[in-house]
Amino acid sequence: MGATKKYIIKKYVDRELFEVEDIVVKEYALTIFLNDEQFITLLCTQKSLESLVIGFLYSEKIIKSLDCIDNINIDENKCHAYVKLNNLSNINEKLYGKRVITTGCGKGSIFYDALHSLKCNKLSNKVDINYENLLKTMKVFNKRSELFEQTGGVHSVSIIHKDKILYFEEDIGRHNALDKIIGRCLINNVNIEDKIIMTSGRITSEIVLKCAGLGIGCIVSRSAATDLAINTSEELNIEVIGFARENKLNIYNKRV
Amino acid sequence: MGATKKYIIKKYVDRELFEVEDIVVKEYALTIFLNDEQFITLLCTQKSLESLVIGFLYSEKIIKSLDCIDNINIDENKCHAYVKLNNLSNINEKLYGKRVITTGCGKGSIFYDALHSLKCNKLSNKVDINYENLLKTMKVFNKRSELFEQTGGVHSVSIIHKDKILYFEEDIGRHNALDKIIGRCLINNVNIEDKIIMTSGRITSEIVLKCAGLGIGCIVSRSAATDLAINTSEELNIEVIGFARENKLNIYNKRV
Repeated sequence: MGATKKYIIKKYVDRELFEVEDIVVKEYALTIFLNDEQFITLLCTQKSLESLVIGFLYSEKIIKSLDCIDNINIDENKCHAYVKLNNLSNINEKLYGKRVITTGCGKGSIFYDALHSLKCNKLSNKVDINYENLLKTMKVFNKRSELFEQTGGVHSVSIIHKDKILYFEEDIGRHNALDKIIGRCLINNVNIEDKIIMTSGRITSEIVLKCAGLGIGCIVSRSAATDLAINTSEELNIEVIGFARENKLNIYNKRV
Repeated sequence: MGATKKYIIKKYVDRELFEVEDIVVKEYALTIFLNDEQFITLLCTQKSLESLVIGFLYSEKIIKSLDCIDNINIDENKCHAYVKLNNLSNINEKLYGKRVITTGCGKGSIFYDALHSLKCNKLSNKVDINYENLLKTMKVFNKRSELFEQTGGVHSVSIIHKDKILYFEEDIGRHNALDKIIGRCLINNVNIEDKIIMTSGRITSEIVLKCAGLGIGCIVSRSAATDLAINTSEELNIEVIGFARENKLNIYNKRV
């Protein structure tokens, strides 16, 4: 169990081979059952699984709110998550609708048409952004991931208020990490209107769409953003900030 | 058109904001039609699209060889790839089979059950590995990606023979980049038995499975490998090497 596993590996350094113990990040295959029917398997990191399931179902628009879920039962040994939904309307349509394979490191968002989803409503964006605070918080954020320190194999996502990290999640997939944060916000009924999403991963269009679904007004990454992410965030009035490192950051679009 | 787009952005440096021109990597949405029926949309980088389509269909086991394809016609303006297949057997089964969303940065492999796929045959692995050559080649590989230099937003994958880079591909998704390489190998009928895959991205189980499908005996990354990738490669007799940087690399499992 757990998020990591120890291996005896061969290390090659300066033309010499020797055996060392190494810590490797685990891929955990969690199969979600909706009302006893197998729905999907997520390859993820075995942490915050309930948040992941809730955030995933919300991101994929399978549930509109927590109220759609009667209960969740996770059997970590069996790698099963049993979700009892009280409303199964249009799940099949989603399942067999257009398939879009996205750039999601963690997963592709396969249940909706990304381009069609651009027709979301503009956000009435209430987040207050202080760039010095963001850079300060990014430094804390970068040091926060023990899993990354140990394995170098995970992405991190946080939800930020001013210069405070409210929640911090990590996963082999940047989408899973974001879904875990989204799940925690739903579970704890966090008002996200004045919050910021901080991520170690690149900002692609579907990351923007996930944040838009939650009503997030600003996304900050230490990595790059794509053109579609910038255009989408423009449409939705979300501020996208990339390459937030040391004393610098790039603001790809300001909110109006 | 093209793989990048210029934006006027605001740059924040040492508490000062100023406008600069910035080059951003583009997300290109390529919709694949199989025998005139819409099949799937890939978010990718607009380069080597025919190789991507062929490699993707092969990786997802939609085609067993190039012979399954009568012709491919790509309309880059419409973002459409029209593929004429001469054999559509079991495509539906694949489409509506078990869905596995993987850690694929580029996409999840959604058409097969990753765990079931571990039942591939062991490879009769003929690749000859010289670690000094690998480190030397990795340095060349790291400098090779103009797109990464410009945008910081892409992954690179190469196929290597001894210390020679045969093909080099880049994409916003590490899976797309690998599929482009796989496509090029199929198109050019490359004997891959003695070749090595080099990637900038993490080695997860489905990367190993894609390489196994092609018969690749060694995968080298400058990043991490997951436990499932290591276990899978053990099963399939593929050598997995991670964190290949400067004078060091980690050999997660030796071939027998």
